[in-house]
Amino acid sequence: MTVSNRSTPKEQLMIAIAPEVAKIEEAMQRDLQTATSGCDPLLVAVLEYGVFNGGKRLRPLLVLLAARLASHAGDKIVDLAIAFEYLHAATLFHDDVIDRADIRRGKPSVNKAFGEIAAILGGDFLHSRSLFLIGSLGGPEALGIFCQATNAMVDGEFLQLRNAENYNLSEDDYFSAVKGKTALLIAATCEIGALAGGATREKQKVLAEYGLGLGTAFQIIDDLLDYQGDPALTGKAVGNDFQEGKMTLPLILALGGASPEDRKRLLFLLEKDEARESGFAEAYAVIDKNEGFALSRSRAESIIAAAVAGLEFFSEEGNMDTIAILRALAEYVLVRKK
Amino acid sequence: MTVSNRSTPKEQLMIAIAPEVAKIEEAMQRDLQTATSGCDPLLVAVLEYGVFNGGKRLRPLLVLLAARLASHAGDKIVDLAIAFEYLHAATLFHDDVIDRADIRRGKPSVNKAFGEIAAILGGDFLHSRSLFLIGSLGGPEALGIFCQATNAMVDGEFLQLRNAENYNLSEDDYFSAVKGKTALLIAATCEIGALAGGATREKQKVLAEYGLGLGTAFQIIDDLLDYQGDPALTGKAVGNDFQEGKMTLPLILALGGASPEDRKRLLFLLEKDEARESGFAEAYAVIDKNEGFALSRSRAESIIAAAVAGLEFFSEEGNMDTIAILRALAEYVLVRKK
Repeated sequence: MTVSNRSTPKEQLMIAIAPEVAKIEEAMQRDLQTATSGCDPLLVAVLEYGVFNGGKRLRPLLVLLAARLASHAGDKIVDLAIAFEYLHAATLFHDDVIDRADIRRGKPSVNKAFGEIAAILGGDFLHSRSLFLIGSLGGPEALGIFCQATNAMVDGEFLQLRNAENYNLSEDDYFSAVKGKTALLIAATCEIGALAGGATREKQKVLAEYGLGLGTAFQIIDDLLDYQGDPALTGKAVGNDFQEGKMTLPLILALGGASPEDRKRLLFLLEKDEARESGFAEAYAVIDKNEGFALSRSRAESIIAAAVAGLEFFSEEGNMDTIAILRALAEYVLVRKK
Repeated sequence: MTVSNRSTPKEQLMIAIAPEVAKIEEAMQRDLQTATSGCDPLLVAVLEYGVFNGGKRLRPLLVLLAARLASHAGDKIVDLAIAFEYLHAATLFHDDVIDRADIRRGKPSVNKAFGEIAAILGGDFLHSRSLFLIGSLGGPEALGIFCQATNAMVDGEFLQLRNAENYNLSEDDYFSAVKGKTALLIAATCEIGALAGGATREKQKVLAEYGLGLGTAFQIIDDLLDYQGDPALTGKAVGNDFQEGKMTLPLILALGGASPEDRKRLLFLLEKDEARESGFAEAYAVIDKNEGFALSRSRAESIIAAAVAGLEFFSEEGNMDTIAILRALAEYVLVRKK
């Protein structure tokens, strides 16, 4: 990376990925214009509002980087890459309806700004467009990988519904839900990028593993931020998961290692609906004392370390810039504040 | 058709299509089992409840019949055909969430039986599976036709939102919304069936026109049943559209031909929220007097006549049974009571 050593790692990363992110934004502008040509102006407004909302574009970026490691960087790849951002946006449209969330990235959510009907239908439009792009540009193999990931997302949501208020949830149960809900789609970005770039099956699998680790760690940090984040940065209040009885990793690991008294107290705070809100500060202290936060972070760190180690498979002269970005992305996941 | 002449036309049709419908049911059972293998039991229950709900299977049936006219009837066609039933089911899942509908075909809707979250996510699962089947079995051309139709559906819904309470809506506006909302997807069933069956582009287009007519007439009759249906047969109360201020064809045609006094009265009944419910019987009488119902039915009849006439293109010896079914389906659309 030809960037100054004086900037922070995050700044260096942002500079390194800026050209790809610009390509992604431009491709989405162009493609949405084509896809919505002749459509109702309200539909166009809903899609533009929901898609151009300051997202990090992590998913399409990974497609481009994986394709680059496979030594191909044709123009068609970016149109394939944006399918993942559409799908991600479609998921957020529907998630915010399901959660009745009013705010997304510090702005009114699509359902808040345009109503529930617009959010459901707009999500369906983007979902359909994403599959169209994957199927027509990536071929049947890419479509198969993509749909396996989208179906796993739905299944992961059902698993999470089932897991809610199951206070005996194991670490394995948590990781199964995270895999379906988040990580498999990130793995699919890398796998499909590699496939489209002409990589061998072995290389595709190695990159999919990197994506799986990145996605899993991403979700662990997300769940940590729900306890420890700065609302001014994350744009949402802390304590939502606990107050909804969601069994995320800090709680699971704290319960696993707690003394009988601490365990009893945590379960009491969780089981009483009234206690959950007022008891968040106390629960936080008990989780902290039992190393729920520290252990969760350490799980994320090990997963990221393994993901980064896998990249060595690609260590050849022409790949070093791309590997540096993938490594920086993985490290950024651990330190992100929002 | 080798059926007794003593049975009614509807009975004859049901007997003629029974083997295809059985194939469709069997294929959906098999495919859903594959697609949900290892999935959360609640997700499986939601999908089975919503898919095996006594639907008429019109859409996959049309795929099979169109493929048969194109002289191909391979096994793969039925797996392509069920994609249309999945998409249809996904649309109903989401529509019932949007309309907060409690009843679907005389039973609790999916959102009523399993909740809104399950209905949104279950619809997403079926949507994704439908595109996967089309893309992997039908190829990029079929995927393009399919996605054009699904995007038009979303656009048609937005158009309908925009049209609500626009009391100056023209017949053209109505037909544009119907095309997007209903007819283009029925056209796509015929076009993709013909394509998969190996028909020429010309034959594909002729069959697409048949489907467009069938779908349009289907929607006109649907809108008539909303005024004139027997709740015991349709499973829903009459007058919903009027009470919601929806501008469907009977109202548009009645307003178009009414005397200034009748027009004023109809608009009064429409514009006053309180008057809409109590005024339905009076509005019905004014629409009837101004031939809104008779003219709508006559529009549907002309459209069906044109659709049936187009089938002559396929008149060869081996096709006569299939053409008889397609003609009977078109005629059934006009007389259906539910």
